[in-house]
Amino acid sequence: MTQQRTLRVALLGAGSVGSQVARLLLEHSDELADRSGARLELAGILVRDLEAQRDVELPAELLTTQADELIAGADIVIELMGGMEPARTHILAALQSGADVVTGNKALLATHGPELYEAADQVGATVSYEAAVAGAIPIVRPLRDSLAGDRIMRIFGIVNGSTNYILDRMDRDGLSAEEAQQIATDLGYLEADPTLDLEGFDAAQKAAILASLAFHTPVSIDDVYREGIGSVTADMIADAHRAGYVIKLLAVCERMITSSKAPDAGAVTADGDAISVRVYPALISREHPLASVHGGNNAVFVESEAAGPLMFYGAGAGGIQTASAVLGDVVSAARRHIAGGVGVGESTRANLPITPIGQVTTRYHITIEVADQPGVLATVAGILSERGVSVATVEQKAVVDAEGTARLVIGTHSAREDALQATVQALEALDVVEQVSSVLRVEGAA
Amino acid sequence: MTQQRTLRVALLGAGSVGSQVARLLLEHSDELADRSGARLELAGILVRDLEAQRDVELPAELLTTQADELIAGADIVIELMGGMEPARTHILAALQSGADVVTGNKALLATHGPELYEAADQVGATVSYEAAVAGAIPIVRPLRDSLAGDRIMRIFGIVNGSTNYILDRMDRDGLSAEEAQQIATDLGYLEADPTLDLEGFDAAQKAAILASLAFHTPVSIDDVYREGIGSVTADMIADAHRAGYVIKLLAVCERMITSSKAPDAGAVTADGDAISVRVYPALISREHPLASVHGGNNAVFVESEAAGPLMFYGAGAGGIQTASAVLGDVVSAARRHIAGGVGVGESTRANLPITPIGQVTTRYHITIEVADQPGVLATVAGILSERGVSVATVEQKAVVDAEGTARLVIGTHSAREDALQATVQALEALDVVEQVSSVLRVEGAA
Repeated sequence: MTQQRTLRVALLGAGSVGSQVARLLLEHSDELADRSGARLELAGILVRDLEAQRDVELPAELLTTQADELIAGADIVIELMGGMEPARTHILAALQSGADVVTGNKALLATHGPELYEAADQVGATVSYEAAVAGAIPIVRPLRDSLAGDRIMRIFGIVNGSTNYILDRMDRDGLSAEEAQQIATDLGYLEADPTLDLEGFDAAQKAAILASLAFHTPVSIDDVYREGIGSVTADMIADAHRAGYVIKLLAVCERMITSSKAPDAGAVTADGDAISVRVYPALISREHPLASVHGGNNAVFVESEAAGPLMFYGAGAGGIQTASAVLGDVVSAARRHIAGGVGVGESTRANLPITPIGQVTTRYHITIEVADQPGVLATVAGILSERGVSVATVEQKAVVDAEGTARLVIGTHSAREDALQATVQALEALDVVEQVSSVLRVEGAA
Repeated sequence: MTQQRTLRVALLGAGSVGSQVARLLLEHSDELADRSGARLELAGILVRDLEAQRDVELPAELLTTQADELIAGADIVIELMGGMEPARTHILAALQSGADVVTGNKALLATHGPELYEAADQVGATVSYEAAVAGAIPIVRPLRDSLAGDRIMRIFGIVNGSTNYILDRMDRDGLSAEEAQQIATDLGYLEADPTLDLEGFDAAQKAAILASLAFHTPVSIDDVYREGIGSVTADMIADAHRAGYVIKLLAVCERMITSSKAPDAGAVTADGDAISVRVYPALISREHPLASVHGGNNAVFVESEAAGPLMFYGAGAGGIQTASAVLGDVVSAARRHIAGGVGVGESTRANLPITPIGQVTTRYHITIEVADQPGVLATVAGILSERGVSVATVEQKAVVDAEGTARLVIGTHSAREDALQATVQALEALDVVEQVSSVLRVEGAA
């Protein structure tokens, strides 16, 4: 074998993922050299505190607090610090010096992605980010490369492991939201700021990244409609269970083929396409493969025009699992260095308009508590019909309480979100309606 | 936008996949140019018969029977003819002229893969073959790139759609093997030579390709232990069903960490690893995700050291689905042309030894028909114990027949294949044993 080149790798951050990346770079150096065609020399590890306790013991001589020097000498820079700054500045500095960048920073990409991709293009370097979405699951590369000759119609899936863990424990073990959340906290499954998970911000960042890739359109976190799991109660999950559904926090990225003949098609491009990107708790049939994604796992369905439905399933988080995704990107970057040639940036932007949530259509399950008296169903049905919301199923149950309340569960056909919201308001205004106790969207073919 | 380069694409073969590739290249040319950074000009389509009827109408002026001329002028050559020759000669000619090659020819790769990869390396071109394994499912690229920094321990999955269809109909609809096979034939699910599917050759070719990639070791079809589904009866499937299992034709590619302390470790490398590659019908728990892969779908589990278990699921065949995989490779090849630099070949070979099937360990279910008389179970248990086969479960059923036959179903702990085969021979030699009616391996965690 001929003499191998050595590439200098700078690692920024030594948290749960970063310390595993460092360990694997050191322990698997021969195998990585085989795969890369170059020896990968870990030149240094940027940390905030040289003395901090870490998951993995790291060689003290590699630790540094001097970012500029470390970055300046690197061929490949791995950014695993998280957050906006100084991560953004470091990545830009690395790209400007011609280094390839590998990052798992979903928050940064979902906000400043286009700026970073453009900086990479200008010098012919690359920004890779397999670790930013769905942990260990290879989803970025399949979207970017494997499906590059296809037209992606829809991506939907479970991309946040901690909320899936909470909902799964509620569904399978009958826990309350508070109990399940406490266990997830005790297990360290929630981010330091739990609202990032619980309110769907983490999932929305990943949805923005997936939609950008799939639809060749810049999508930022601000473009993503978002609801967290805070409104999901044990009762809702039990009701869903009885009806053959499970509640999952879903990220949905959808291409909407809007016909110019549609009466109110909203934003329409030359070829009539627009996209919708949204995150919310939704009902999914127990028969659907996503229903059996348990615990902290992630799974992503991709529906494309030619390939049909594909599913990618695996661990959505975890230091060592995510480190696998980081190293895959590092090996690819190293191969590019060895092969020569410029990096291939994100493909030319299709720049599809983003449809407001009001124009999105899905099916719904509406649960209403009503006075148990004649004519109520007719009144309710009239309200739906007036707003163009077509009823698919109705179930009425007498609720045992002093006031003789009944519960109606109405399943709709596909309806527009704005029509549905107007319907809910109108229902709430009715004297016979005590409350609209839940409105859930239904995703996935039944 | 700057002026785009044009790359000339030669298509060899216009069967069910080839004709869809041609259609998509022509119909989606703007999108493909966006993704590739170059216009992809379909320069010509090699066919055997200019007048043949095809699935898709193709422009007559593109059809040609002159391979050499077409290949000589091409930047990218797509080989979808299948078979050994002239496909091999055409691919070598394309590579020698510096073209990148995209192929779906699993038979050729499983036999002549190393020759083709070496020819590509010599000129810095690439051979891509996402379409050769599991149809539309991106599995080659994730193994080659996404998991390049990880160590793959095991791949197992359903990689032949037609046999999965047959076994699934037998399991779910109670059909006999003959009935299910007839329906698969009528639907056109079986290859022209059905033994390729039924006897596991197709799955074995794919297993060879997956194992080569995963373990960086040349694995040819001759290295794959292979059993088809011919021995699987409706009774076996019904028995499996009652016991909580389903029978699937599985491809298993496994890294075996053989310790030097083991008494008969067989072939051992410096670091003690060897691999096993095998295809056979096996029992899998109904709880396992592979159990719910129905119809003609494919699914592949990949277990790696860091990433943990990953699953890839989708359509395993079909002209348009497989065309998606071909086009993904074409776009990647085009990007490489635009970016410059040499192609990155298969990574340096680890060249792990291939373990003979006799040294492989799995769990087994053995079904034996025995005389229903005292002491038989003790005799049978003694035979197993003498050969080091440890019993996990025993179920005995009286079989209603004139001779008072009983049926024993014995589940073993992990045992070596050679010990198991010796056990079966010894059992068959016993007077009290009427027949060993089935021996099935059990795969996947219970």
